[in-house]
Amino acid sequence: MGAYKIRGATNAILQLTREQRARGVVTHSSGNFAQALSLAAESLDVKAYIVMPSSAPQVKKDAVKGYGGAIVGCEPTLVARNAMAKEIQSGTGAVFIHPSNDMDVIIGQGTACMELLEEHPRLDAVVVPVGGGGLIPGTGLAAHYLGGGCKVVGAEPFEVDDAYRSLKSGEIESNATTDTIADGLKTELGDKTFPLIQKYVDRIVRVSEEDIVTAMKLVWERMKIIIEPSSAVAFAAVLREKDRFKGKKVGVVISGGNVDLGNLPF
Amino acid sequence: MGAYKIRGATNAILQLTREQRARGVVTHSSGNFAQALSLAAESLDVKAYIVMPSSAPQVKKDAVKGYGGAIVGCEPTLVARNAMAKEIQSGTGAVFIHPSNDMDVIIGQGTACMELLEEHPRLDAVVVPVGGGGLIPGTGLAAHYLGGGCKVVGAEPFEVDDAYRSLKSGEIESNATTDTIADGLKTELGDKTFPLIQKYVDRIVRVSEEDIVTAMKLVWERMKIIIEPSSAVAFAAVLREKDRFKGKKVGVVISGGNVDLGNLPF
Repeated sequence: MGAYKIRGATNAILQLTREQRARGVVTHSSGNFAQALSLAAESLDVKAYIVMPSSAPQVKKDAVKGYGGAIVGCEPTLVARNAMAKEIQSGTGAVFIHPSNDMDVIIGQGTACMELLEEHPRLDAVVVPVGGGGLIPGTGLAAHYLGGGCKVVGAEPFEVDDAYRSLKSGEIESNATTDTIADGLKTELGDKTFPLIQKYVDRIVRVSEEDIVTAMKLVWERMKIIIEPSSAVAFAAVLREKDRFKGKKVGVVISGGNVDLGNLPF
Repeated sequence: MGAYKIRGATNAILQLTREQRARGVVTHSSGNFAQALSLAAESLDVKAYIVMPSSAPQVKKDAVKGYGGAIVGCEPTLVARNAMAKEIQSGTGAVFIHPSNDMDVIIGQGTACMELLEEHPRLDAVVVPVGGGGLIPGTGLAAHYLGGGCKVVGAEPFEVDDAYRSLKSGEIESNATTDTIADGLKTELGDKTFPLIQKYVDRIVRVSEEDIVTAMKLVWERMKIIIEPSSAVAFAAVLREKDRFKGKKVGVVISGGNVDLGNLPF
């Protein structure tokens, strides 16, 4: 479905027992993980409940429905979202799968970097976006065990630089505001993802909103791939630090193409 | 550069002698072949002259320049275009390479279907768009020699159904009007391409403008690939003849993503 999240979603469902699978899975997400869990569940003949704010764009609801997910609406608050997910768990026995702060999800996401390293074994660095941190810890594990010295660099917008600040302070930091076009990166780190980031991530590069749009447009125009702003952030980091990456073999994970085609930033 | 035309362009340059290569190549195109020849030439250290109407959109000129092509402007008529290409040939000794009506180009384009058949050897059919006919004769050759019974189906808009009519009449037909969103398919067949189409193409499916936009949007939204209307035509044909293709293994060649991002049809 055009995003790495299918990897984590699939891996998480595959770890469930037959009994658990029969009861289904539940998550809260209005983005790529909602689609990923729906599609992974459908492929494995498992029911997926997706808690999504009623205000979510129709295009995202349609995608989830198209992949066979059962949408359950809620108010657009964190509290309402968690309460509704809990309600579904107790009502149906469905297993809750967190979009990022879950070891099976993290390990599944790591297969993107694993495959990249299989094709390109001698990378100096791999650059990935940091949101809730589902991708980067998996990438860190893959690079550490299979990358032979390949460094992992995170990329995030200045406007939501919680991971950058968390690495500096040694504690999970929040974002006071989340005024970024990279809406997939507004989420914050969790107690499973942060320690792995501390251990396996070399550094985090921050990029401006303009950097993101420029990188996104270049990928659309030249690579002909529809990527959402969040997935342009890693490439934006490479463009921003051109000199530092010069002459290096750098892998960039580009993933996620949820875009409102009627409302493009360029 | 996001289109099959790089295959034909590369193959055509590879057939040139060292002396010919030193003099460069010239073509007339404002679309994907212009970019393809520029990039293929640059990769092989050959000079490429691209004759392009001065009125061509800036984004296409920028792409050609970005790939190292030397743009030579001309009036937006067939006569002016051919005259300018001739002038460059005699002035520089550059070899003219036609975007479609050239056996080396045709054979190069056929490698797309060849690779498809390597990955999926048991296709019942492969569906490709028909414009000037650079792609479909190459596809026909590949399917005939390597496809083990794989049929080749062409797809073209009702609005420029010259290939459909040509197959019926047995002669190269023209389009009185070319009022289609699939601007890459407005060109007509040539004396090299038409006989191969007669010999190796099973049939041609015509699609409406609405079919094209629907297919294009579905590919953008679900496959996250930026395709131009012309490259959506083959998939549109499959959607239009759903019942006929049902249960069959069908390959679809999707290629070409020259789109004005500020002026989308949806």
